[in-house]
Amino acid sequence: MDFLRVNIADGVVSVSPTPDKYLKFGGRALTSRIIADEIPAICDPLGPENKLIIATGLLTGTTAPCSGRISIGAKSPLTGGIKESNVGGVAGANLARAGIRAIIIEGAPSDSFALKTIVIAPGGARLEDASHLKGLGTYETAEKLRALHGDKAAVLCVGPAGEQRLAAASIQSSDMAGRPSRAAGRGGLGSVLGSKGVKAVVILPFPAASPDYSDAGEFKKISKEFAKQLISAKAGLTKYGTAAMVTAANKMGGLPTRNYSSGSFERAADVSGEKLYDTIVERGGTPSAPCHPGCVIRCSNIYVSKDGEYVTSSLEYETMVLVGPNLDIGDLDALARFDFLLDDLGLDTIDTGVALGIAMENGMLPWGDAEAAFRLLEEVRAGSPAGKLIGSGAAAVGKALGARRVPAVKGQATVAYDPRTFKGMGCSYATSPMGADHTSGPAIPGRIGLDPAKSFELTEAEGQHELSRDLQIMITVVDSMGYCFFVGPDAANMERTAKLLNALYGWSLSEDDVVDIGVSTLNIEKKFNRDAGISADADRLPDFFRTEPLPPFGRVFDVPEELLKDMDFNL
Amino acid sequence: MDFLRVNIADGVVSVSPTPDKYLKFGGRALTSRIIADEIPAICDPLGPENKLIIATGLLTGTTAPCSGRISIGAKSPLTGGIKESNVGGVAGANLARAGIRAIIIEGAPSDSFALKTIVIAPGGARLEDASHLKGLGTYETAEKLRALHGDKAAVLCVGPAGEQRLAAASIQSSDMAGRPSRAAGRGGLGSVLGSKGVKAVVILPFPAASPDYSDAGEFKKISKEFAKQLISAKAGLTKYGTAAMVTAANKMGGLPTRNYSSGSFERAADVSGEKLYDTIVERGGTPSAPCHPGCVIRCSNIYVSKDGEYVTSSLEYETMVLVGPNLDIGDLDALARFDFLLDDLGLDTIDTGVALGIAMENGMLPWGDAEAAFRLLEEVRAGSPAGKLIGSGAAAVGKALGARRVPAVKGQATVAYDPRTFKGMGCSYATSPMGADHTSGPAIPGRIGLDPAKSFELTEAEGQHELSRDLQIMITVVDSMGYCFFVGPDAANMERTAKLLNALYGWSLSEDDVVDIGVSTLNIEKKFNRDAGISADADRLPDFFRTEPLPPFGRVFDVPEELLKDMDFNL
Repeated sequence: MDFLRVNIADGVVSVSPTPDKYLKFGGRALTSRIIADEIPAICDPLGPENKLIIATGLLTGTTAPCSGRISIGAKSPLTGGIKESNVGGVAGANLARAGIRAIIIEGAPSDSFALKTIVIAPGGARLEDASHLKGLGTYETAEKLRALHGDKAAVLCVGPAGEQRLAAASIQSSDMAGRPSRAAGRGGLGSVLGSKGVKAVVILPFPAASPDYSDAGEFKKISKEFAKQLISAKAGLTKYGTAAMVTAANKMGGLPTRNYSSGSFERAADVSGEKLYDTIVERGGTPSAPCHPGCVIRCSNIYVSKDGEYVTSSLEYETMVLVGPNLDIGDLDALARFDFLLDDLGLDTIDTGVALGIAMENGMLPWGDAEAAFRLLEEVRAGSPAGKLIGSGAAAVGKALGARRVPAVKGQATVAYDPRTFKGMGCSYATSPMGADHTSGPAIPGRIGLDPAKSFELTEAEGQHELSRDLQIMITVVDSMGYCFFVGPDAANMERTAKLLNALYGWSLSEDDVVDIGVSTLNIEKKFNRDAGISADADRLPDFFRTEPLPPFGRVFDVPEELLKDMDFNL
Repeated sequence: MDFLRVNIADGVVSVSPTPDKYLKFGGRALTSRIIADEIPAICDPLGPENKLIIATGLLTGTTAPCSGRISIGAKSPLTGGIKESNVGGVAGANLARAGIRAIIIEGAPSDSFALKTIVIAPGGARLEDASHLKGLGTYETAEKLRALHGDKAAVLCVGPAGEQRLAAASIQSSDMAGRPSRAAGRGGLGSVLGSKGVKAVVILPFPAASPDYSDAGEFKKISKEFAKQLISAKAGLTKYGTAAMVTAANKMGGLPTRNYSSGSFERAADVSGEKLYDTIVERGGTPSAPCHPGCVIRCSNIYVSKDGEYVTSSLEYETMVLVGPNLDIGDLDALARFDFLLDDLGLDTIDTGVALGIAMENGMLPWGDAEAAFRLLEEVRAGSPAGKLIGSGAAAVGKALGARRVPAVKGQATVAYDPRTFKGMGCSYATSPMGADHTSGPAIPGRIGLDPAKSFELTEAEGQHELSRDLQIMITVVDSMGYCFFVGPDAANMERTAKLLNALYGWSLSEDDVVDIGVSTLNIEKKFNRDAGISADADRLPDFFRTEPLPPFGRVFDVPEELLKDMDFNL
């Protein structure tokens, strides 16, 4: 597998074999190592010293189930620390076929630099002029690029938000229908791509070639069992998508409602997974779809209007809650419009949803007024001051409005699990090197840590910091393989992964070796953050989660701060 | 001298003698100690745990020259660290007469809390309803409060910016004519007062009483010599005000022009101290005025229109440059309008001037367009998103606009001395616990450190970090006495101050003891910042000061980073 290095300052595009020291790393383990090795921690995230790194996982391109995802990493303009954002779509498969382990986009454009596209084709990689895409939404961008490069081309692109270098800008990835509906949303990585003057990365289809398995039979056998296990374990996810969580979180009293002022929403049934499924089926949409080739869970969906017209893909739990109950909005059609609009602008639905909640609580727009929110978001396209502000994420909006209740950690918004109910998730928000992020330590119901004998009640403080630590370690492994998040941070998967890697590469890794990929990566990330000036004091939730009891059950976040500060990821 | 404690949560106002441990401290030395002792470093600056502290200096209320100023301190919403902002006006004299060393405003208002004024009167201190002042500019606020409480009342108040808890909000202080023209501008302390639901602090005149001097004759003798020395040394300042610096800084190539892209401004002569003096004299304004009783330097002024009508007071160097050359504006009348408008809104002229420069460089409004800037600033009054943004200071505007060149340190804007020319000032910007601030380590031409034998060229890197350290120590002493900044961080003043304190209080302090007030205070401040999560990595200037040579002389800031990181203030 190769490294593709694109220097924006001089326009040089070069390919070289993956350096030996990186051979055993992919995905997040690789992006975080390259960041630590090549990016000065104290650099300006939008300046010439930052780099954007796109990496396939160690299993991407194989027949291992749900392994087609990629990691995108950089120093984050939102958190000021290290960042990995994981995304599906077809880019992973195309990159694997192209034999590329990592793309490193570096340098800064000169003043006369015109917007560019990086095109990776069988004939070689090159920079192409993208002036004709300036200011376009991601949907039109993807459409025009597929018209140029064919329907099989994978597109990673930014919208107006990324071009404007807004701190909550996403990088959108084209799905199996060619639409840019998948988002590397967190951490404002779209603004880093925008700061490089790059509108899109297009990966053309290369001739299909099977990886050179060390033991193809063994690999196939484990993959097959693994797929079977996933299909059976994730049946609810397949049917209802991630929205299956709405009803459960609401019952538990942990569904963020009206800027985290309640844990249950009166109209939760109107935005539930069941309601979503029924609506999509009734209208002739697609209730279950894969986001990348090789996915066996198919938690994605295609939401259509009453007339059966495409509205958005995919309507998922985090987005639905944060632009729904969190804004006092209980209408699936409105939620779907939010999702499309934010994907098209190239904005993180999570950080923007939370930002809108803060804006509503502080009188910038009325509670529950979806139309007012759409008008405000359209200002991002216009580049008005109001657009700049709302596109800068929850922490920036909170600061500008002098808000007292700003649900964010390390500058990044919390997610659709109120930490007063989901206490292990709260530990992950507080301690992850990524800032508040549900995917970096997902302590949701049913999760257990590395020691299956230990089991803790997630609404109680006891043991939650340990659970969070274990899940952070295991999910880092997941993110380093190219696995989808829903493969899950399960101890059993660590062993399976060791076997798959050994069968693919002829290695002889133990389960512990695989776990250590997670531990060592987290340590590298923590050190980068310290060097970037983010101290252990930042490992905490905003005060109001500790002081304001959450209706209806009156819980507060009560995991002792000393258990969270400067978490030790070593086992 | 007493402590006045105002608890906003329960409305209790209490007076108690200054605690023994604080008896030898005033001004900044006191505010920083109370902050360190009472405010959790990691607290939300706009939350219930933060406190706003107003303290007189150890010499305030005496006949020592230029000693009538006060320190205002809190955890800063702008920097996230400790803050002291120093201000003139009549509040210091009135507080000294009232026998108050410090006011501590604490707690958080309940939801039903109506805007309040804290009134300190001979009969006692109390909270009064201020609903009628809601949303008013500081000029109208001060006028209404004087109408209620008499012309001799001192007013400290916030404008719309502070009420809205904007991060660049100032606290304005009424001058000798009763106008709120003096600003505790830096660090967003107005938003802390706003977060307490307090519109103003009104200090009524108490019967005049001479301090109880231990040796009145000796005190008088030293004061008199001191005043004489100041009057003779500061003649230029008396005539031209701080604007005297425009011509010098321009010649040296260190006058911030068009968002720090040049060190010299083509139309510097149009905004010089000489031009300002001539204009004011010609129009019948006041070219030289004291900002507080007991001032012998009188660097303030009253700027009037062509018709002789009051426009603003005082037009000073930092403001003039940052809303003038820094915005490509070379018209004194426009500069005066900026000054009035920002004082009336209650916004720091420095942070807002730099924010406007960033906004102009990044296309939010045209270069040099004062009218467009006035319209934008008026939106602060309206509370629009654009107003919220511009009122949040330079760092926030830089972030929202994805700006590459953001002249700020620890979240606070740099000042009207380009650090590539004024390298000692650059060291102070980088290392002061206050964030970028010219008053916290003013290495301007002519300054020397604690060792008079050592003299360094301020445009060269050598020795500048040591000069900055010495000046930071000595100016902290100045800020702790109630002295005006222009008394100056001179070694000779340390000895004078020891003698004055001994003659007043009957102490037996040495010059070294006085210097140690500065050292110990800086150490307390540094520790608070570390506990607040501001690491030593934040002790640096933005990269562009190191990488972009400054026209016309092509200098860069080249003091080695290792000399600045985690500066040791111990001698």
